[in-house]
Amino acid sequence: MRKKRVGLAAVAVLAAFACASLYLRAQGRLEGIRLSDSEAIEAVLHAQQDAWNRGDLRAFLEGYWDSPDLTFAGSEGIVRGYDGLLARYQKHYPDKQSMGELLFSGLEMRSLGPDSALVLGSWHLKRTMGDAGGVFSLVFHRFPAGWRIVHDHTSAQNTTH
Amino acid sequence: MRKKRVGLAAVAVLAAFACASLYLRAQGRLEGIRLSDSEAIEAVLHAQQDAWNRGDLRAFLEGYWDSPDLTFAGSEGIVRGYDGLLARYQKHYPDKQSMGELLFSGLEMRSLGPDSALVLGSWHLKRTMGDAGGVFSLVFHRFPAGWRIVHDHTSAQNTTH
Repeated sequence: MRKKRVGLAAVAVLAAFACASLYLRAQGRLEGIRLSDSEAIEAVLHAQQDAWNRGDLRAFLEGYWDSPDLTFAGSEGIVRGYDGLLARYQKHYPDKQSMGELLFSGLEMRSLGPDSALVLGSWHLKRTMGDAGGVFSLVFHRFPAGWRIVHDHTSAQNTTH
Repeated sequence: MRKKRVGLAAVAVLAAFACASLYLRAQGRLEGIRLSDSEAIEAVLHAQQDAWNRGDLRAFLEGYWDSPDLTFAGSEGIVRGYDGLLARYQKHYPDKQSMGELLFSGLEMRSLGPDSALVLGSWHLKRTMGDAGGVFSLVFHRFPAGWRIVHDHTSAQNTTH
């Protein structure tokens, strides 16, 4: 009888540890992000950069969540939805010359939970018509199809304008 | 013996359900935020608004995470740390006249995980020297002391400048 109680207690302790570990993993860490997640997010941003530099706005948009709840904040207020964002990009960047060559740099990532991450970075457009640049804050969410931007806040830097 | 096996199986099933429920709760939902969390976050923002309108920058700053890892993104790039942010606010708003009367509006909140939330909104400064305004994206994190802003991206709106 005593042996069985010890066995049950051991099972209970192991179950509690497993539960606690799962919970802590699910909570994520404020500062830490798993290497596999940061690599997956970097791949999305690199694909965006490549698409932009081919002049392919639709492929660039694939890094965003295809939803009416997608949001983009900036100097024009808040733009909503995938179609709204496409229209904004088409208005500001009507041709390859205005798009120029895009470079993301200084990426910083933080985990915000098991399926969310904050990504800060700088953007720079090298253009014959004049360079542009600034910083962005991206909130990424992990969907079954992979990580996508669910909110983008982008600023132009005063000194580059 | 059969009875004991059934008993153990029931315990295992219950433990699995408890674990799954804890995990799902920890994951949070992309769109939903619990009422108690949104109320707590709104209270932080109201306290900030009140502090600003008393001309008390230090009390306004209490809504932010007191850490060197705090980040603030905007037209000047990225400002880091509690002291960096205080210096930025003191430079841009040296007196009550430049601070004016602050109003936050149009708050939208999304859960990003068990302890993180995204808050979008508009800010407006009513001032004799000329109004200012724009939009902000705030990432809040729940600390033992309560919800604090860990990242702020604020833009001035073109039309108000």
